[in-house]
Amino acid sequence: MSISVNPAVAAIPYGDRKRIMELCRGREDLVDLMSGNPYQQMPEWIRRRTTELLNSGPMRYTHYWGMPELRQRLAEKLRSECGISVDPERGILVTHGVQEALYVVMRTLLRPGEEVLIPSPHYANYLLNTVACGAEPVFVPLRETGGFLPEVDELEAALSGKTRLIVFSNPNNPLGVTWPDGKVEELADFVRKHDLLVVVDEIYRDFAAPRPPLSIASLPGMQQRTFTLQGFSKSYFMMGMRIGYLAGPEEVMLHIKQLHYLIMLCPSRIAQYAALAALDCPAECLEPMYREYREKLRILYDGIMRIPGVSCVQPNGSFYVFPNFSCFGLSSMDLAAKLIEEAAVMTLPGTEFGSAGEGHLRLSVVSDRDRVEQGLERLLRFAQGRSNQVIPGRGMRTS
Amino acid sequence: MSISVNPAVAAIPYGDRKRIMELCRGREDLVDLMSGNPYQQMPEWIRRRTTELLNSGPMRYTHYWGMPELRQRLAEKLRSECGISVDPERGILVTHGVQEALYVVMRTLLRPGEEVLIPSPHYANYLLNTVACGAEPVFVPLRETGGFLPEVDELEAALSGKTRLIVFSNPNNPLGVTWPDGKVEELADFVRKHDLLVVVDEIYRDFAAPRPPLSIASLPGMQQRTFTLQGFSKSYFMMGMRIGYLAGPEEVMLHIKQLHYLIMLCPSRIAQYAALAALDCPAECLEPMYREYREKLRILYDGIMRIPGVSCVQPNGSFYVFPNFSCFGLSSMDLAAKLIEEAAVMTLPGTEFGSAGEGHLRLSVVSDRDRVEQGLERLLRFAQGRSNQVIPGRGMRTS
Repeated sequence: MSISVNPAVAAIPYGDRKRIMELCRGREDLVDLMSGNPYQQMPEWIRRRTTELLNSGPMRYTHYWGMPELRQRLAEKLRSECGISVDPERGILVTHGVQEALYVVMRTLLRPGEEVLIPSPHYANYLLNTVACGAEPVFVPLRETGGFLPEVDELEAALSGKTRLIVFSNPNNPLGVTWPDGKVEELADFVRKHDLLVVVDEIYRDFAAPRPPLSIASLPGMQQRTFTLQGFSKSYFMMGMRIGYLAGPEEVMLHIKQLHYLIMLCPSRIAQYAALAALDCPAECLEPMYREYREKLRILYDGIMRIPGVSCVQPNGSFYVFPNFSCFGLSSMDLAAKLIEEAAVMTLPGTEFGSAGEGHLRLSVVSDRDRVEQGLERLLRFAQGRSNQVIPGRGMRTS
Repeated sequence: MSISVNPAVAAIPYGDRKRIMELCRGREDLVDLMSGNPYQQMPEWIRRRTTELLNSGPMRYTHYWGMPELRQRLAEKLRSECGISVDPERGILVTHGVQEALYVVMRTLLRPGEEVLIPSPHYANYLLNTVACGAEPVFVPLRETGGFLPEVDELEAALSGKTRLIVFSNPNNPLGVTWPDGKVEELADFVRKHDLLVVVDEIYRDFAAPRPPLSIASLPGMQQRTFTLQGFSKSYFMMGMRIGYLAGPEEVMLHIKQLHYLIMLCPSRIAQYAALAALDCPAECLEPMYREYREKLRILYDGIMRIPGVSCVQPNGSFYVFPNFSCFGLSSMDLAAKLIEEAAVMTLPGTEFGSAGEGHLRLSVVSDRDRVEQGLERLLRFAQGRSNQVIPGRGMRTS
């Protein structure tokens, strides 16, 4: 028998990592400069406190929207760190990572045929969620020549009567850049002027340098049209715990929370315990880890800048750099494949983040420093071996 | 500004527990015979092993569909305990409880306008998910006089050209009964004859007496049309961990898994560790707990049967009894409210499970035995106080 399925679900595209994954299969010798899944252990401090809470009582379902104590702490954090005032009872939802937050927000807001502005290259799920809602993605280019910052005239040109919202991450995955305050303010002006909504993914905010980005929801008139997504996965190396949170306008949160209930019942109690522990984790535990990640990014960037013909926007946020390797005359996918086969380095083709990523690779620093250095060395050796094949003028120096 | 939302999401009804919850607010004296959220701690054995795994390495994202080792173990369990043969790579998905499993299955299968058969009284989420898909619920009565078993002629009468699937739980929440093998076989005949699909929620299977129910997917020709939902929440008292799983036809699982990825990225790693630990938990840890729950159910049932005019189908599964209190001449909601106000006992109105539950209350045994006994005593005293108001013939003895 053949079972028909809902076409909106069948339309959700599968990513194209299959070729990369198949090339990696069974290879023990590869250095991972590919993934966004750190090899770093959760701080011992958080593990110890989580264990205490695990043993402190029954592992019952929690409040559907998240434990009240956790929502209270998150409201304080949003106020003091991001300048966002939100009622912990009505305006915050604890989610299964930013992944769930993104799904429930977009599914609640979007109707078929509406349009979503996606600055691109982009995190693939902004597109997948748009498609899953039957809505239309409209890509707005983030240009290497402009330091991967969005330009308002290009956003204006992408508008139509059906435009509902803009979704982006700041700091940016895959681009590695944090948009400066002035750019965030420009974006807010644009959004207010055209009466749009914002979905902003700030999961990498603690990895921005020299400080976390300006939260767009904190600007005048923006809180009532902004859904702010943050989480614990990256900041505390608790990816597999699956705890994020979402703050947004109360009238819509009411519906989002009911959809969340229907999917989740509640977030995991033990993961919420870990989140509470994380909020108490001393800065002395965390700061050295953030510093190490910035340092690894600097090492990777400096190394890449030594390759003739390759350009790279200097990273100042997230785990990534997004260099332009088009001087090698290969597609991103072919280059990533060759790097696995010939140099034993895993990277992601820029096209994983939309066609605007063609010519680029996304390189990450989730491996330990010595592994990152080893991967960089292999990459440099590979580049040296191809130096006589470099196509002049295809790369672009921005600094 | 007013933000419009997707009407399919806005249509998801909120439950009607508000009045009950408000009556309970601030009352420290209440006995909980209401909830499905046990006060029982996770077995120490599982907590210890989970702690070891928490400290064993980084808390990374896992495989999107669940850790391969866990899926392998679940495939073995499904084969040996339920007679269901399923490929761990293609036919199983680890979910955020049965709640997520139900959502992703129904959202993937259903299109607007299709019809869903729901034997009723029913777990509210079967209805909520139907509505959230824009599909139509068709309730089929489960009659107290028939021991809450579905009758095939009533199912036949509910069919239309749009009927896609039937969804039910076995053992049943809220009814407390386990449908016998013969009834499950009748259901399978009905489903095959009319080329329908089955979504079966077996979350309470370890609480069935004298043994777990026959899994409908194990019957000839049924696996290719059945989605079997099971979980760890009830069987191991790890509700707040949020781990369930889903087995179904591979062609559809492909789409379900992609929707799951979009919502979840992956299930919680630590919850999957706890699930692996639970699968190794010795029966000596578990059997006494299941026995205690059966014993508490027996105590509650025996007590209720002593109330003149009240009838009750004898429970043999799940955490619940579903007695008929219509002899008191009150609506379920009014009776539940009075019980809180006058007897300090929390119960759920049968109407929480559809209008077919009118006249009934759902009573649970998630509290410790002495609390259950105390709650029962209060209930009996309340009933005695109203014994001169009993309306003869409104209750119905089935045994």
